[in-house]
Amino acid sequence: MQFIIQREYLIQSVQDVMKAVSSRTTIPILTGIKIVANKEGLTLTGSDSDISIQYHIPIEENGQIIVDVKTEGSIVLSAKYFGEIVRKLPAEHVEITVEDHLMTKIKSGSSVFNLNGLDAEEYPQLPQIEEDQVCRIPTDLLKFMIRQTVFAVSTSETRPVLTGVNWKVINNELSCIATDSHRLALRKARIDSVSANMEMNAVIPGKSLTELSKILDDNDEVVEMVMTDYQVLFKTKHLLFFSRLLEGNYPETSRLIPTESKTTLKVNTKAFLQAVDRASLLAREGRNNVVKATTHDNNIVEISSHSPEIGKVSEKVQCDGIIGEELKISFSGKYMMDALKAIESSDIEIHFTGSMRPFVLHPPGDDSVLQLILPVRTY
Amino acid sequence: MQFIIQREYLIQSVQDVMKAVSSRTTIPILTGIKIVANKEGLTLTGSDSDISIQYHIPIEENGQIIVDVKTEGSIVLSAKYFGEIVRKLPAEHVEITVEDHLMTKIKSGSSVFNLNGLDAEEYPQLPQIEEDQVCRIPTDLLKFMIRQTVFAVSTSETRPVLTGVNWKVINNELSCIATDSHRLALRKARIDSVSANMEMNAVIPGKSLTELSKILDDNDEVVEMVMTDYQVLFKTKHLLFFSRLLEGNYPETSRLIPTESKTTLKVNTKAFLQAVDRASLLAREGRNNVVKATTHDNNIVEISSHSPEIGKVSEKVQCDGIIGEELKISFSGKYMMDALKAIESSDIEIHFTGSMRPFVLHPPGDDSVLQLILPVRTY
Repeated sequence: MQFIIQREYLIQSVQDVMKAVSSRTTIPILTGIKIVANKEGLTLTGSDSDISIQYHIPIEENGQIIVDVKTEGSIVLSAKYFGEIVRKLPAEHVEITVEDHLMTKIKSGSSVFNLNGLDAEEYPQLPQIEEDQVCRIPTDLLKFMIRQTVFAVSTSETRPVLTGVNWKVINNELSCIATDSHRLALRKARIDSVSANMEMNAVIPGKSLTELSKILDDNDEVVEMVMTDYQVLFKTKHLLFFSRLLEGNYPETSRLIPTESKTTLKVNTKAFLQAVDRASLLAREGRNNVVKATTHDNNIVEISSHSPEIGKVSEKVQCDGIIGEELKISFSGKYMMDALKAIESSDIEIHFTGSMRPFVLHPPGDDSVLQLILPVRTY
Repeated sequence: MQFIIQREYLIQSVQDVMKAVSSRTTIPILTGIKIVANKEGLTLTGSDSDISIQYHIPIEENGQIIVDVKTEGSIVLSAKYFGEIVRKLPAEHVEITVEDHLMTKIKSGSSVFNLNGLDAEEYPQLPQIEEDQVCRIPTDLLKFMIRQTVFAVSTSETRPVLTGVNWKVINNELSCIATDSHRLALRKARIDSVSANMEMNAVIPGKSLTELSKILDDNDEVVEMVMTDYQVLFKTKHLLFFSRLLEGNYPETSRLIPTESKTTLKVNTKAFLQAVDRASLLAREGRNNVVKATTHDNNIVEISSHSPEIGKVSEKVQCDGIIGEELKISFSGKYMMDALKAIESSDIEIHFTGSMRPFVLHPPGDDSVLQLILPVRTY
């Protein structure tokens, strides 16, 4: 194998596939990046067996030669060393040649590296995916849907299925739901499904979605999502991103979401968030980071917390409106801040049904995004 | 105690004195910041008993009222909570009032905190320093002298005196020397000593100098340095920075520095640094991060390294000149990079006296800064 490539492209592709490579793997070949050079260009692959990322660099783009393949072939190179080397090479072009015994020469300017390679034949095959169930999502919407839900997955392995986000497609509507059983995040959107009568119901690991979100640039190009029984594949122009799915039935959450409201509060998100943030300062050390909200006359809500050893804090926030019954409720300051940040709207509506029942946050007049939080019993 | 202060000034002062507060202290009162309000203004103090920092905020500056002291007094408040609270308060002004039982009310806008305070009488006194031995150093020169030497202190406690930097003043010349016995960094400068016939020879802990450097803004205002037997004090307009000195005799290092040279190499610092950096990529895992330099004809020096399990790297660097004997020498890539970065000069001269002897780096024609490195035996 021998090729010459523009270094910038190599850096970008290595950086992307590296995201799937784990330094803690017990499978030696997976510490490497697989490089395949052929007449279509260069393909790099990284994997930790949960996530696999493949990046394709074409021979040319916009009439400009990116990679010049002299001899086809393949090799696996240590991700750790290859990544650092590529980043630090001195010249605009890099020449990579596999010599005897998988020894790989990396040349750029006056700098010459010789890295011990591994046999690409030993690298595991990526899953073959049937493209039966395909839908299309603009990148920025996809990133939104991940960001607004993935923080609410469980970090505990006691119920593994809750460490993932439940993705469902019914009637061209995609819904993403995450819950750790103390709170729930829900985001819905209409999407363009390619397959007729596409229906899916799968649980994608939170970690995979976080990595996917990092790797996607902010733009409105379309990502194709292909779903199978055990794998999901996200496809962009240069990238293939595979993730395994979580096994097990995701709990039915729709009946958890209250449909009525006894107290409704409408408030500026930033003012409310900052008040909760300040109240959390003293509560953080405590068991549950408990913050209390109490409604008063004249559309005032008081946010307070109390830690006997440290002190107490209280702040009155002016709401745009408080409708319904008086309310005293305690909740996790952290969960409240996570939810307020995820909603990404300048104003917010909070619907309470008593101090012991879950409550719901969403942007005024918009139910495509919803955050639910269970209160904390303090009385 | 009661006062109203502009929040920006409070944030700055708390941020500075916090640098001396350690969360790991076993003395509870030292987890706090002492605040004293009197007719001169506000004084904040933080200390971990090795370093103490005092920040003074005057009543007014440039005709503008900064702090309005209603009642004089003092209190100690938890550095951790007070620091975070001050940073997150909503309004431009902050009112602080000590009420019954040291309970301290912190008010800003609609936000009200009540923090449990500690008795300021129990806070340890700062050392009283006789201003016999005083000299003046511009801030930017002081920061330079620290940055160019402090990285070379020992991180091992086996010889505690080597964890500090040896500061000496003789005949209005300040010299700073640090060594971990594998390398040595030296920086000299003429300074303006205030005291007649000032002579000093002290060892200042590396950690103190690093903190001092962080806390000083980049400007050319003068810092006064006051030296006593056990303490050094650095004084700026708003700040007093105290550090204890290290006990024990600092080794005499002048005879370690070779005065002759068998091979002299003159090279562009950046090109040489980057070549060593690349060679270090593969050497890093090894015991000593060993990089080899070999001189060739036509003013070429070859930088290489070899790790049997990973691979090898070699690079030819064009020098501006190589004078004297042929040379093959091995050294720590990390030490070389530290030294090259510390010198902060576009070109560099390296003087070797054989492959087993320490070698010296300095900017061409400038001996106010010098870096010495011991080679590594590899043959």
